[in-house]
Amino acid sequence: MQPSDTPNIPAASEILSAADIPADMTPSQFRRLCREGRFATHTSGVCPGYAQANLIVLPYEDAFDFLLFAQRNPKPCPLLEVTEPGVRLTQICAEDCDIATDFPRYRVYKDGQLVCEPTDVSDIWRDDLVAFVIGCSFSFESDLIEAGIEIRHNTLGCNVPMYITNIPCKPAGKMRGNMVVSMRPLPPQDVVRATMISGAIPKVHGAPIHIGDPSVIGIKDVMRPDFGDPVTINPGEVPVFWPCGVTPQSVVMSVKPKFAITHAPGHMLITDQKNINLRVQ
Amino acid sequence: MQPSDTPNIPAASEILSAADIPADMTPSQFRRLCREGRFATHTSGVCPGYAQANLIVLPYEDAFDFLLFAQRNPKPCPLLEVTEPGVRLTQICAEDCDIATDFPRYRVYKDGQLVCEPTDVSDIWRDDLVAFVIGCSFSFESDLIEAGIEIRHNTLGCNVPMYITNIPCKPAGKMRGNMVVSMRPLPPQDVVRATMISGAIPKVHGAPIHIGDPSVIGIKDVMRPDFGDPVTINPGEVPVFWPCGVTPQSVVMSVKPKFAITHAPGHMLITDQKNINLRVQ
Repeated sequence: MQPSDTPNIPAASEILSAADIPADMTPSQFRRLCREGRFATHTSGVCPGYAQANLIVLPYEDAFDFLLFAQRNPKPCPLLEVTEPGVRLTQICAEDCDIATDFPRYRVYKDGQLVCEPTDVSDIWRDDLVAFVIGCSFSFESDLIEAGIEIRHNTLGCNVPMYITNIPCKPAGKMRGNMVVSMRPLPPQDVVRATMISGAIPKVHGAPIHIGDPSVIGIKDVMRPDFGDPVTINPGEVPVFWPCGVTPQSVVMSVKPKFAITHAPGHMLITDQKNINLRVQ
Repeated sequence: MQPSDTPNIPAASEILSAADIPADMTPSQFRRLCREGRFATHTSGVCPGYAQANLIVLPYEDAFDFLLFAQRNPKPCPLLEVTEPGVRLTQICAEDCDIATDFPRYRVYKDGQLVCEPTDVSDIWRDDLVAFVIGCSFSFESDLIEAGIEIRHNTLGCNVPMYITNIPCKPAGKMRGNMVVSMRPLPPQDVVRATMISGAIPKVHGAPIHIGDPSVIGIKDVMRPDFGDPVTINPGEVPVFWPCGVTPQSVVMSVKPKFAITHAPGHMLITDQKNINLRVQ
């Protein structure tokens, strides 16, 4: 067994899950585990206090349209960083961070079709690729948890349920598609607090987009999410819906660019940015 | 004398200044005056409550770099709207609004050199031009005034003083340059209030970038601004500096793109957006 170079990190031969990651592991240490292919699953709860991030990578020919799409739709697409064409190393959201290796798992699309889900995309990286690193609802969840609000999918140990809605995003060039939302069921007395707390963090989706009846935003069966896992809604609880960073994946699937890379849902980048620094300032 | 088609608007033969504009004129009516070439001066105080906007127009070949620059530097470059290539009509910040005619006055740059200051750029508009409509500090000024804070350049009836600082913006592609700031002198008891009030409106520059000694941010003589007019600083008053939407003009002057159009400083677009809707929500 190869010894780990950092005391808190399990030995290199082990395949790890979020439960194996010590709470005091730094984002930089965690990204190294991903880079070494030793962590390839959901990141919920990893490195608490640090912002996690979604990814979409597009060729330069599509980059202006997508950047404009994100500018027009900041709630589902809050940009934490956009790289220059071909650049793999981030400059803003993390140091020593390689876009092509430091997510636990990726999805590769050709002409809008999912072709593989590798843990490393350095072998298919190209000089014309632009990476969009997008804020994630895990950031405001940590504030909700701190306020004593139960996050159901955490309690159940599953992924958050996500739905493609009937809410159109503002189109930009060839980019168009409906908003994807994540859902958390809340007891009535927590709804306003959760709205205000998340609303103070517009850099990571901000306030809910809808509270209550799922059919109003085109969700036919709340127990059958389009991404992630279904969660229990107890009697009297209200489903609360937030704009979701998986929206770009929905756009990719409907627009069908020649080439795209995204993160695999729930398999996020752990950035060096503290959630607290994403609040309005 | 040709009769005006709207009771509040002076007759068409008149050349107008801000003092001629009735407080109840709508942004749409005001933009029509600009389109007709009848208003071609500073817009401070026009259509109170509505957001005013800066402009930079660049060819598509420079548009990704500038959009990335704005994404990385949201404080000096808060985007209210970005148009698709060649499109002159706005879709988001105003209805029936023509980018090429509805600012009171423009500046046209070739290879970074100012070549003219027309009141209409429709004759030089091109299919590859992308317009960036950028928030303006006049929006938070109206909140400061409502809070009883004196805005010196308003009291003096002149333009706000603006300075090129030593604060580098985050570069993006070929776009790089130092931040331009606007300055308002405040009595010490108003500094914190002004910081908090403006900080609640991040979509239009947000909180100050610097409070106090101008030399700290590279301003040699606060009485000799790089743009706008100098204003009196009374004994005991503190100069407070906000990121300024003229920053893109400074970038254009240093980067020297082949072609660019901006608004003339102080000659802003009056949008249909209420300032109150630019607050965090």
